[in-house]
Amino acid sequence: MENPFVLFGNQIIERDHVSIDMEDRGYNFGDGIYEVVYIYGGEPFSLNEHFRRFEESAQKLDMKLPYSIEQIKEKTAELIKANNIHNGIVYIQMTRGASPRAHLFERESACLITGFARKMDPPAEAQEKGIKTYLTPDIRWLRCDIKSLNLLGNTMAKRIAADHSCGEALQHREGLCTEGSSSNLYIVKHNEVRTHPATNLILNGITRQHILEIAGEEGIAVNEEPFTTEELQAADEVFISSTTMEIAPVISVEGDVQATYPIGPVTRRLQEKLKDRIKQHRVHQ
Amino acid sequence: MENPFVLFGNQIIERDHVSIDMEDRGYNFGDGIYEVVYIYGGEPFSLNEHFRRFEESAQKLDMKLPYSIEQIKEKTAELIKANNIHNGIVYIQMTRGASPRAHLFERESACLITGFARKMDPPAEAQEKGIKTYLTPDIRWLRCDIKSLNLLGNTMAKRIAADHSCGEALQHREGLCTEGSSSNLYIVKHNEVRTHPATNLILNGITRQHILEIAGEEGIAVNEEPFTTEELQAADEVFISSTTMEIAPVISVEGDVQATYPIGPVTRRLQEKLKDRIKQHRVHQ
Repeated sequence: MENPFVLFGNQIIERDHVSIDMEDRGYNFGDGIYEVVYIYGGEPFSLNEHFRRFEESAQKLDMKLPYSIEQIKEKTAELIKANNIHNGIVYIQMTRGASPRAHLFERESACLITGFARKMDPPAEAQEKGIKTYLTPDIRWLRCDIKSLNLLGNTMAKRIAADHSCGEALQHREGLCTEGSSSNLYIVKHNEVRTHPATNLILNGITRQHILEIAGEEGIAVNEEPFTTEELQAADEVFISSTTMEIAPVISVEGDVQATYPIGPVTRRLQEKLKDRIKQHRVHQ
Repeated sequence: MENPFVLFGNQIIERDHVSIDMEDRGYNFGDGIYEVVYIYGGEPFSLNEHFRRFEESAQKLDMKLPYSIEQIKEKTAELIKANNIHNGIVYIQMTRGASPRAHLFERESACLITGFARKMDPPAEAQEKGIKTYLTPDIRWLRCDIKSLNLLGNTMAKRIAADHSCGEALQHREGLCTEGSSSNLYIVKHNEVRTHPATNLILNGITRQHILEIAGEEGIAVNEEPFTTEELQAADEVFISSTTMEIAPVISVEGDVQATYPIGPVTRRLQEKLKDRIKQHRVHQ
């Protein structure tokens, strides 16, 4: 697909026809938000949950949707269809639009929505064999609960991980583990799942929310207290989750602590139950 | 000027002809850097210092300049000339350019430089009468030394200040004052100037560097130790500095602490000497 269809404002157009203004606040300030939704068999998974968070992010940044969330969902469905995506992702972002560059923004700014859809197979190998990770200090801002375009801290952490042949960066703030550079982080100790609470220091992943629900259904204990890098090191199992990864076992950590981990039964059970949930969703769509 | 000339790549073209890609990393990740240079009487002030910092920011983010810094300076001069700017600013930014959206960046990415120039008179009233400020927690990332496009923390602080009819937001990290949302911050106590050291928590402003040099020449004591919000409250004089402001006296602070300040002799002396330096620069250009 050399010139796919994309979402620009409220229109589905050819990508080559899109032009972003050089003074769009997204381009000068990273002033915007986004969501990535996975498409399984042509159907977006947890679309409502993603767009509920999209609205929350907009509200936290004092941004006004240019059209209703229902219309955005319809456009997202059109975008997926126009590109004939079976398995893949749809990416939707909203910036505060173009205005003469100045730090101070107006609450009534005309926001600009753009989006694309792309084929992508689920990362079966990472899900099966697990991934290596690299632990590094969390240098991001204090509003990681907003799914914003201010992602330099994340991208720098990802680069450091890749430089050490690791698939994901894990981050800690003064010794307390927060999350991955584009995933949530969990450890298992004595059959209890631990993950950072959904505060301002992490993004409350949609997949994270599914996992905590599944753990409840399955009678797996969950403790949403921050855990230390030492506890990470001493964990029985470690895994990460994200929209595009689902659940991936972590087989090693390097960097600020070092350890290797088996792929354990709790991780496997949650993986399986999440896949069931995704399948059921498709049946009930 | 309805369709000014702008810098796009290494060309000076009409603004209407610029088109930014929707997957430029600047647009999806705020993955880029910038500088703002003030133009006095047609001449950019401290151009070399600004572009030295531009190179440093690029290096810190592992970005490669697409052409030499000398060529960027030449293009900046052309841009100023093409728009016939007497007093104003020139804004130059560089993003990591367009690539299929993914957190992980390549070090060899083709970076994109864009820029514009705009007429703007020095803010004489703020310099003369001073400005009101609003103190709020510093929620930004831990690499504020990089002049990056990840500016949401700054813009949110500026919005809060404006909501309280203040011209600038001051920020503190757990009780230690860092800087303004788009300026450096100074207090004067017993004739000593205090300002946050140039660590990862502030941007080392070019105007800040001039002020510290001037203080040295004038025999004014400077203490680059972080000061507390209580020390801010109890200061004899307070002022801020930036490229577009030069030095503006602070006449009041609201928010996390409250105080009013006279416009004092140290502030006035530094203001005057900075203006001298700007004038001399123009003569020696």
